[in-house]
Amino acid sequence: MTGNAARPNRQVLLIERPAGRLEERHFRAIDGTVGEPGPGEVLCRTVLLSIDPANRAWMRGRTYREQVGEGDVMAGFTLAEVVAENGAGIPTGTVVACESGWQEYAIHPAKRVRVMPVRGPLTHHMGVLGVTGLTAYFGLLEVGRPKAGETVVVSAAAGATGNVAGQIARIMGCRVIGIAGSDEKNEMLRRDLGFDGAVNYRSQTFREDLRALCPNRIDVYFDNVGGPILDTVLPVMNLHGRVVCCGAVSQYDSEGPPTGSRLVPGLLVVSRLRMEGFLVSDFEGRWPEGEARLAQWVASGELKVLEEVLDGLDSAPGALIGLLAGANTGKRMVRVGADPH
Amino acid sequence: MTGNAARPNRQVLLIERPAGRLEERHFRAIDGTVGEPGPGEVLCRTVLLSIDPANRAWMRGRTYREQVGEGDVMAGFTLAEVVAENGAGIPTGTVVACESGWQEYAIHPAKRVRVMPVRGPLTHHMGVLGVTGLTAYFGLLEVGRPKAGETVVVSAAAGATGNVAGQIARIMGCRVIGIAGSDEKNEMLRRDLGFDGAVNYRSQTFREDLRALCPNRIDVYFDNVGGPILDTVLPVMNLHGRVVCCGAVSQYDSEGPPTGSRLVPGLLVVSRLRMEGFLVSDFEGRWPEGEARLAQWVASGELKVLEEVLDGLDSAPGALIGLLAGANTGKRMVRVGADPH
Repeated sequence: MTGNAARPNRQVLLIERPAGRLEERHFRAIDGTVGEPGPGEVLCRTVLLSIDPANRAWMRGRTYREQVGEGDVMAGFTLAEVVAENGAGIPTGTVVACESGWQEYAIHPAKRVRVMPVRGPLTHHMGVLGVTGLTAYFGLLEVGRPKAGETVVVSAAAGATGNVAGQIARIMGCRVIGIAGSDEKNEMLRRDLGFDGAVNYRSQTFREDLRALCPNRIDVYFDNVGGPILDTVLPVMNLHGRVVCCGAVSQYDSEGPPTGSRLVPGLLVVSRLRMEGFLVSDFEGRWPEGEARLAQWVASGELKVLEEVLDGLDSAPGALIGLLAGANTGKRMVRVGADPH
Repeated sequence: MTGNAARPNRQVLLIERPAGRLEERHFRAIDGTVGEPGPGEVLCRTVLLSIDPANRAWMRGRTYREQVGEGDVMAGFTLAEVVAENGAGIPTGTVVACESGWQEYAIHPAKRVRVMPVRGPLTHHMGVLGVTGLTAYFGLLEVGRPKAGETVVVSAAAGATGNVAGQIARIMGCRVIGIAGSDEKNEMLRRDLGFDGAVNYRSQTFREDLRALCPNRIDVYFDNVGGPILDTVLPVMNLHGRVVCCGAVSQYDSEGPPTGSRLVPGLLVVSRLRMEGFLVSDFEGRWPEGEARLAQWVASGELKVLEEVLDGLDSAPGALIGLLAGANTGKRMVRVGADPH
């Protein structure tokens, strides 16, 4: 390893913790370098970088992971190719899932990467067959437990997780109503993804539209957003309804204390509702099962794949800012490097 | 039945729906009358009237029952003696549980009363063996599902339901911490009821006191109050903790929109919490089981009975107003008439 020049490594840093809405100026792209893997480590070349609402929550404080600090390489999930290894037992050329963050290269201990058996397009492993698809799968089926014929409502329904949750509910024989932020997205949900209905939360008649589409009320609410939309949905829930708490994206992109849900816990008592939070990592032992079932549905055409691939690491800040404003349809990711092979 | 003069019947009416805090002036006691039971009906003489936080919620709007309207006899749960019947198949002298409201006599169809096999003091059937005891029993065991060694926190811990929930948790081998509104109540919880600790939510150091008493954090929170106390407890919950939503008394005695829980649903996701509401009626088929077990614990002395009996129907308004301000210790009820026999 001696005599090797350090390898150039483009990186995007979070240089300022946002006080309000996230903006481009909170990031800076730099031309850094990366060294060689130490014993038991692998050097990973980033191929795809995942853009997730949770990225913004990580800037606010401790969540299920450490806060991202000022001056740090911005954190993010990645799919990468192993390009060098040092007694780590993972051959170069292997595709791995890891958390390299917003940079072209990163070094990880072997135990911090997960070898990814690639079937079909790599982008599917970042979305529908990856963490977002598995989140939809386990959240809907294990936390929401919908029965055929029940009404399932999904917020951020055109988003990465929401579109998959809604489609799985449809496959399970439920009536599925999506909530999204534009009429175009809603038209797509009905036409392309087979949702039974979709409502625009920005509409003046949101509350009435939702009630009209749920004549038998709501049995399962797959909640990606929290906030006022949650308080609009809760009064329409059936007795013993279930709220799958998957995320609270409405509360991520600001620093002020969120106003909170006015109906909790009073309405939970009156309607005997269950609200339950989960993380996909709680089901890690069952990921292969979920991945296999999702892959089967994709192969059969029952589950349509919605994804957006933006080009080049420098597009990451704009990709995240747009995502938080609801600009995406389906799973958003950034192509940082070429596919292997 | 002809020729009978109408029987005098003291009644307390809700004459004005309170806009803010409930006051004596919202009620009026009148000397009314009651007639004779029609076919299939029973005439019930009220013995004990239950005073419950939910009474106030019923004035605010529809809950799990119709709103109490202006000019109505105030609603309430009662234990009563059947003093006349008309082909209803329930002999006079029978003690029944019914919802006669705040009056000395009421007529009910036979199917709206529940025959009460009386064991021991009648007051126990209004409290520890009645709806409040059963609420604690099924809420804690079926919704909270505590395991021996876990930490259980109960709010309104000196209240009718809270004190029983806490004692059951102790019987189950849990570490039990109560939250109440005075140091006297907390001293009583520790000394008389065997709580492992108790904190005063009115103290400046409430948050720190709670954390200090829960070194292993909180596994089950039996929540009777909602509001800011809920938001103080939630961040101390362990991963996969359970919140039993039993009531939201902090939100009943005002008309302004409650500010809501700022940590829902964000923290539910991060800590994978389950919040679940219930009503004791959901477990109606299992009441005999619960009652038998509670009676056994009372008989063995493991479960101490905390109750307050106020005298005379006219004391009901003050009894409820005081309850909402936290003046009670244990189950509060009003003796409206003499015990039968």
